[in-house]
Amino acid sequence: MTKGAKLTELYDTTLRDGTQGEHITLSVQDKLLIAEKLDEFGMDFIEGGWPSSNPKDEEFFSKARSLHLRHSKLCSFGSTARLSTAIENDPNLTGLVRSETPVVTIFGKTWNAHSKKGLGISDEENAELIHKSVAFLKKEGREVFFDAEHFFDGYKSDREFALKMVRSAIEAGATRIILCDTNGGTLPQEVGEIVTDVLGVSTVPVGIHCHNDSDLAVANSIAAVVAGATHIQGTINGIGERCGNANLVSIIPNIILKLQGRFTFVEHLAQLTLLSNYVYEILNLPPNTKAPFVGKSAFAHKGGIHVSAVMKESSLYEHIDPALVGNRQRVLVSELSGQSNIRYKAQELGITIPEKSDVFKKIVHNIKELEHRGYQFDGAEASFELILQQELGNFTPFFEVLETKVHIESGKDSKNVDQAILKVQVGNDVELTAADGDGPVNALDKALRKALTRFYPEIRSVRLVDYKVRVLEEKRGTSAKVRVLIETGNGRTTWGTVGVSTNIIEASLQALKDSINYHLYLGKSTLHAV
Amino acid sequence: MTKGAKLTELYDTTLRDGTQGEHITLSVQDKLLIAEKLDEFGMDFIEGGWPSSNPKDEEFFSKARSLHLRHSKLCSFGSTARLSTAIENDPNLTGLVRSETPVVTIFGKTWNAHSKKGLGISDEENAELIHKSVAFLKKEGREVFFDAEHFFDGYKSDREFALKMVRSAIEAGATRIILCDTNGGTLPQEVGEIVTDVLGVSTVPVGIHCHNDSDLAVANSIAAVVAGATHIQGTINGIGERCGNANLVSIIPNIILKLQGRFTFVEHLAQLTLLSNYVYEILNLPPNTKAPFVGKSAFAHKGGIHVSAVMKESSLYEHIDPALVGNRQRVLVSELSGQSNIRYKAQELGITIPEKSDVFKKIVHNIKELEHRGYQFDGAEASFELILQQELGNFTPFFEVLETKVHIESGKDSKNVDQAILKVQVGNDVELTAADGDGPVNALDKALRKALTRFYPEIRSVRLVDYKVRVLEEKRGTSAKVRVLIETGNGRTTWGTVGVSTNIIEASLQALKDSINYHLYLGKSTLHAV
Repeated sequence: MTKGAKLTELYDTTLRDGTQGEHITLSVQDKLLIAEKLDEFGMDFIEGGWPSSNPKDEEFFSKARSLHLRHSKLCSFGSTARLSTAIENDPNLTGLVRSETPVVTIFGKTWNAHSKKGLGISDEENAELIHKSVAFLKKEGREVFFDAEHFFDGYKSDREFALKMVRSAIEAGATRIILCDTNGGTLPQEVGEIVTDVLGVSTVPVGIHCHNDSDLAVANSIAAVVAGATHIQGTINGIGERCGNANLVSIIPNIILKLQGRFTFVEHLAQLTLLSNYVYEILNLPPNTKAPFVGKSAFAHKGGIHVSAVMKESSLYEHIDPALVGNRQRVLVSELSGQSNIRYKAQELGITIPEKSDVFKKIVHNIKELEHRGYQFDGAEASFELILQQELGNFTPFFEVLETKVHIESGKDSKNVDQAILKVQVGNDVELTAADGDGPVNALDKALRKALTRFYPEIRSVRLVDYKVRVLEEKRGTSAKVRVLIETGNGRTTWGTVGVSTNIIEASLQALKDSINYHLYLGKSTLHAV
Repeated sequence: MTKGAKLTELYDTTLRDGTQGEHITLSVQDKLLIAEKLDEFGMDFIEGGWPSSNPKDEEFFSKARSLHLRHSKLCSFGSTARLSTAIENDPNLTGLVRSETPVVTIFGKTWNAHSKKGLGISDEENAELIHKSVAFLKKEGREVFFDAEHFFDGYKSDREFALKMVRSAIEAGATRIILCDTNGGTLPQEVGEIVTDVLGVSTVPVGIHCHNDSDLAVANSIAAVVAGATHIQGTINGIGERCGNANLVSIIPNIILKLQGRFTFVEHLAQLTLLSNYVYEILNLPPNTKAPFVGKSAFAHKGGIHVSAVMKESSLYEHIDPALVGNRQRVLVSELSGQSNIRYKAQELGITIPEKSDVFKKIVHNIKELEHRGYQFDGAEASFELILQQELGNFTPFFEVLETKVHIESGKDSKNVDQAILKVQVGNDVELTAADGDGPVNALDKALRKALTRFYPEIRSVRLVDYKVRVLEEKRGTSAKVRVLIETGNGRTTWGTVGVSTNIIEASLQALKDSINYHLYLGKSTLHAV
């Protein structure tokens, strides 16, 4: 593709095909939030759901009418009519009409094995179903896109049949033909050849819809665009049934940055990392740190040679400038990397450590020792910084926890109790507090804040934004170590802290202590403890 | 590619390039275990490490001498010599010789930007370094493979320079030239064209080594093989620096099943899922459920239409037979799927539920209600089966926990206490027990077993194999719900159970209770409680 080539449309199906993935559920409110974000990013089309398949999707379309979408057009999704019902009474088609979206996307069988075995109808009947369904929706004033289900398998099994179905949709008024690799088994070279053939037949723009069962959905989508397809369907983060749909988060920067291709939308490429993280957050799924372009590790360097090279010139080990997609370079602290990485990390935090000093050696030793015990400072940079500043003499903990007691009681007929008792020392004062909570860690959190608020009223603005537990050494069963990562915010910024122990309460307390200490350290409180 | 085409060699670098990934660490023992598994699978070459870069890799090669590899050849990895040192004293090359592997792989600069900016040497000097290094290792009796670092970027920037370096390695006696897309920024069509060009120049077999920064490493490796490359480098599960290396777990089945390609190794394709899971296990990482071919979700069907179709014929929604790669079909229970999925799941467990019965309706209602509260039955099929069997009247819990108390105490100078007290009823007997543990959940586990062993001595053979915690609603901080998944074994089989609560102790207890009940249920113990 060269500059000035045809514009490519983006069609997002995160809210429909994406939700078919395992562990994926979205409430109506979640879907509305994501739709707004997709519009902000500049997606051309947003497929919101399948109205007749579940009440949640009907509710979505009804509420979506009050969204003020700037650029995106909302689409509802459904199948062609059934043979047995009169077209105007078909529940699927009437559901689509009721959704009141400007665009309706319907899928029809283009693999004869499916129409014969799945539906038990003749080729002619199938072509007629497609024609009638498209024509009905056109008559209702909708723009109709036709998803040619199993197109590649269908084409390979019977080219004439597959093309006949596509022609039937076009003749009835469909304005896009989207070739679907529904089972995800097709290879890029096949996609390229078949798209080229269809482009010779189709009078309307041709699109591509891939699944990742062969780990090739991104490559297949790109192969289709290179062959001349001008409409791409996919999902954010590649969520979707089985191995997922084509990942738009990888496709978009490849097309813009590698193929010099252009999209119809106003490019907000630098928002890509935020968009990806936002969708993970709404889905309550941990982001894929290894994700190309947007993952936390995508521009993270660990090997010593790589680190010293990127410190000279980034492009030596980075295929694009991470800022283009809203990501950033990172250098990891680990046994493979040694002192130069710790120094880089310190620099990143604005901390200067004297060259070859004993302090520096001690810090390196400390960090390696902690990592050996299961600590991890990716995502817990506040804990890392506190260690550095403590060694450098710039930080002393603001309080000390002298005693911790946690009581948990539950029974068939008795009230549940989750209670924490803490003895905390600040300067020469000792405070004993207790708090009930929603679970033992919550009780502990409350008791700690209660004890400290008298001394440090500024911690009132601190709130926990995220709490993660990871079991280390899973093979050790219930006596395994756990690592707790806590993300804390004060309304202006957030910071991550870590704790490790075989006791989840103890690990949580470590991370909580660091989290509050870091806030107080940022505020440069002067009263230091003990 | 057609049947009878050239055989392709597999070169695994999980133990070297793989360990450059974030969160990846392998002990020497771990590396030896993985090497044995790779050999069993039939990998041609296993790159064990970079001996002069860290003492762990030196130790690996020394211990690896006592491995009895059936098929695989062990390779050590390193760079070409430095300009400043005499070749026979170069620490990197002498380290490679000391590793005593039959094959040595060295990488050299083939991008002039790197040799000029990175090393600060002339083209001639770079070519000479490559030549001398390869020749030295040949003279020491090793087979030498040459990794052409940054070859694709180098070729695009200066074709003559890149090819000159490759020729230099061949002239010195290298028996493989591996073209590396080190930064992972190349597109499949470019890879195909460049490999074709190099094949016209090279007198030795040409290999490919890709990284996944553009989400195209699998497609690029396949494009290289289609163009005529006969040696593929990659890692198991695609682990590796930044976004990872090319994933052999996806490449192998694509080449065998889609391209009808053949490898030099004896095909153990049906072991692929086991191999992938084994490596995740040794790495102590959760498997990628969405992984193509081998992921738990790869052949999992959720949408109602898909489920009813695969119940008729699997190939309608599956690109390959999952058994070919050692995986299996699954049907998910979720709000999207409804009754047919629950019925399928029951069938899978060998349970017949009367059609349209009240019992069936009640089960569907129960399951949906539990899922709504955060339960999840993927990975907890024993809990699912207990619910079914209880509704069908085939199972009554073997015991009841009447009271739970957990005490946790820690302090600066005092001994830590993690103690659980349980009151358990079996039939008309009530047993009160207490146990100390390594953390509160471990104490609970011990107390429960202690209380029940008197009634059910057969639980002595039960052991926990895995314990996972997932925080739901992470935004709620420390008062969030947690889901605990426990995997239990009795030496013959393993089963998964689940618990959900805002209290991690309570969630763990639920999963532990199900885990023991399921074991007793399997043994068809006759004494039922309460």
